[in-house]
Amino acid sequence: MHKVEHFGIAVQNLKEASRLYEKLLGVKPYKEETVESERVTTLFFKVGETKIELLEATNPDSVINKFIEKRGEGIHHIAFEVTDIEQEMQRLKQEGFILLNEMPKRGADNKLVCFVHPKTTNGVLIELCQDINHTA
Amino acid sequence: MHKVEHFGIAVQNLKEASRLYEKLLGVKPYKEETVESERVTTLFFKVGETKIELLEATNPDSVINKFIEKRGEGIHHIAFEVTDIEQEMQRLKQEGFILLNEMPKRGADNKLVCFVHPKTTNGVLIELCQDINHTA
Repeated sequence: MHKVEHFGIAVQNLKEASRLYEKLLGVKPYKEETVESERVTTLFFKVGETKIELLEATNPDSVINKFIEKRGEGIHHIAFEVTDIEQEMQRLKQEGFILLNEMPKRGADNKLVCFVHPKTTNGVLIELCQDINHTA
Repeated sequence: MHKVEHFGIAVQNLKEASRLYEKLLGVKPYKEETVESERVTTLFFKVGETKIELLEATNPDSVINKFIEKRGEGIHHIAFEVTDIEQEMQRLKQEGFILLNEMPKRGADNKLVCFVHPKTTNGVLIELCQDINHTA
């Protein structure tokens, strides 16, 4: 794992949260993207080498909506950049971590992603992500 | 704010969590430090420019213990590096953010720190931190 690629914050209202994080971070968001398969709209800021991703549910069934219902708004996941996601998934499985998807799936911001179950990582939902341009 | 300096993960057992995060991240922790004033023992890993801080309460009254009782283990805060913490605190107050301490206080890893109330940042506990070597 090379770096913290981003962390994701579950919010109820993306527009309001965007205004707030723009003031907090002192930078404007650089990208908004809806990921239909995950039923979320995402908005990205960048600070140093790390992105801050705000996530709003597009549907009551979205995991983001369920997260907010259960725990309130807040940090939803931390994503680490990897070069070869399949190799890293294999390594983590062998180390005893539980993966939430067996195959890499398409995420926001041009990434292949895989999530690690928070019950094997002290309650932290961890995402592995690999730039799609790096796939063979 | 220049970069994500670290994020803090509240854990119940620092030794067990350390073994687990060493396997997850593929690196060894570089520092363990107890911050008596905060009643926590901290352990640091580094991935890219960002540190991962594991936090264990040293006392039942510790905020880390209260956090775990209420929400379970998980991400406790995100810290951003700033050059001049007092100037940044002033700026955020003027923008309407609520600070949890009026003056910078001593944190782990040779830092001056200030926390921003999560009710003004979509449920995210944000820490500002400035290297103590940068103070006048």
